[in-house]
Amino acid sequence: MQKGKLTLVGAGPGDPDLITLKAIKALERADVILYDALVNPDLLHYAKDGAKHVFVGKRCGKHSVPQEEINELIVKYALEGNDVVRLKCGDPFIFARGKEEIEYAENFGIKSEIVVGISSINLLGHYNIPITRRGINESFWVITAVTKEKKLSKDLDLAAQSNATCIILMGLRRIEEILAKFNEAGKANVSAAVISKGSHDDGKLLLGNVGNLAEKVESSDVKAPAIIVVGDVVSTHPDFAKLMKEEGYL
Amino acid sequence: MQKGKLTLVGAGPGDPDLITLKAIKALERADVILYDALVNPDLLHYAKDGAKHVFVGKRCGKHSVPQEEINELIVKYALEGNDVVRLKCGDPFIFARGKEEIEYAENFGIKSEIVVGISSINLLGHYNIPITRRGINESFWVITAVTKEKKLSKDLDLAAQSNATCIILMGLRRIEEILAKFNEAGKANVSAAVISKGSHDDGKLLLGNVGNLAEKVESSDVKAPAIIVVGDVVSTHPDFAKLMKEEGYL
Ligand SMILES: C[S@@+](CC[C@H](N)C(=O)[O-])C[C@H]1O[C@@H](n2cnc3c(N)ncnc32)[C@H](O)[C@@H]1O
Ligand SMILES: C[S@@+](CC[C@H](N)C(=O)[O-])C[C@H]1O[C@@H](n2cnc3c(N)ncnc32)[C@H](O)[C@@H]1O
Repeated sequence: MQKGKLTLVGAGPGDPDLITLKAIKALERADVILYDALVNPDLLHYAKDGAKHVFVGKRCGKHSVPQEEINELIVKYALEGNDVVRLKCGDPFIFARGKEEIEYAENFGIKSEIVVGISSINLLGHYNIPITRRGINESFWVITAVTKEKKLSKDLDLAAQSNATCIILMGLRRIEEILAKFNEAGKANVSAAVISKGSHDDGKLLLGNVGNLAEKVESSDVKAPAIIVVGDVVSTHPDFAKLMKEEGYL
Repeated sequence: MQKGKLTLVGAGPGDPDLITLKAIKALERADVILYDALVNPDLLHYAKDGAKHVFVGKRCGKHSVPQEEINELIVKYALEGNDVVRLKCGDPFIFARGKEEIEYAENFGIKSEIVVGISSINLLGHYNIPITRRGINESFWVITAVTKEKKLSKDLDLAAQSNATCIILMGLRRIEEILAKFNEAGKANVSAAVISKGSHDDGKLLLGNVGNLAEKVESSDVKAPAIIVVGDVVSTHPDFAKLMKEEGYL
């Protein structure tokens, strides 16, 4: 029997139209699709008749199916000769353990391909906030809030000192501690935002600043998945000035 | 006469299949498409019959049509009642002056929409290099090499000190100076790469380390547009170990 192959596919952040043509083509020819909880299930409509859909319920970050088991499932289906698509939220090579899945499969002689995707970081543009802007900043820094040891990343300390737009993933539950680092760096008045369920129908953008954003999240109903953005670019959002005025900041 | 609208659309990094479905839909309904030099012209095939294609020859970074003139063209076509698509390489809100175009149009009461795109930073995944990897790093930092005053960005100094994967745009011509900063930070042996014309048919990946990459670029035919990547994630590329061994590094 011929070995199948593995295609690691980025599903984008939620809106089913934010998937690439290349990803659609991979879904159309797949025999088996293993997909995460954060992937929009509408995307499975691209699958051909008879294709197998396997929910591996890995809510980005929280695994219901452990990573090892996902690796084994990929190999099992591929060794049976299937064209396996592993559909992951966002871009499969950004905080997503995609490389681990590919390497595991390669140990069994299974060939792999990668279809990159729109990441949750691109959601800034989706909500009319430039990631970079001439005259405001020259870089952006994307950080996982929590390390594999469940501690806050040390990179946050250096990031708080930088002029980069900082985009923090997997940090909503610890937003107070995270923003405290920026506060200590003298950035209480720097604009900041949370984008929750970005590009999904119930997506939300919450605007504020380093000093007040954690409180705003507390008294709102924003939920994970969410990204936290800190940087002056947030203040260029069309609603920002009005909001700050209403709240007595400007 | 009714005013038209502006849709800022990300064309992706080159491969015409790395465009989103949302971008395709915008192209299909556009009356006028203003596009950059780095945009794959094949994408214009999505335009409807009779749509006007305007090349604004802004080779990402180098403008042949000055930005002010592009802004004015957008407004002119939109005020004539056209559905205007501004097609930009990569993601229109990452080092792309997209926000400036939107704000200029809004001054004339022209409504705008943003369709985010696959950025050149996603090219790492395309070439089998994870942007982040558990156990290797907790963040990535994306920097424009050159500021609007044509100086090297100061952010590079701090980035060279960090543990982030560093991705540097618009830096190929000054790669020696850029890598010197990482070298001074004691990173001569850290793996590094250049991706040139990524995802285009003549795309190239050049692997090396901080100490030898500038020389490799010098003696190769890699050309702009290109990104420079510095970080241990590069060493997980399947060809890396073999290459370093051949070159006597391992
Ligand atoms: C395990 S990471 C996966 C990241 C993904 N590979 C990407 O490129 O966006 C999960 C984190 O991504 C972010 N995320 C994913 N989808 C999101 C969405 N629709 N809105 C906001 N944040 C999202 C959240 O920070 C979440 O905790
Ligand atoms: C003005 S910036 C535009 C960036 C774009 N908006 C994006 O999201 O990638 C131009 C720079 O993007 C990078 N770039 C764009 N397309 C590329 C490609 N196909 N391969 C490598 N680098 C590319 C290069 O660093 C180039 O100098």
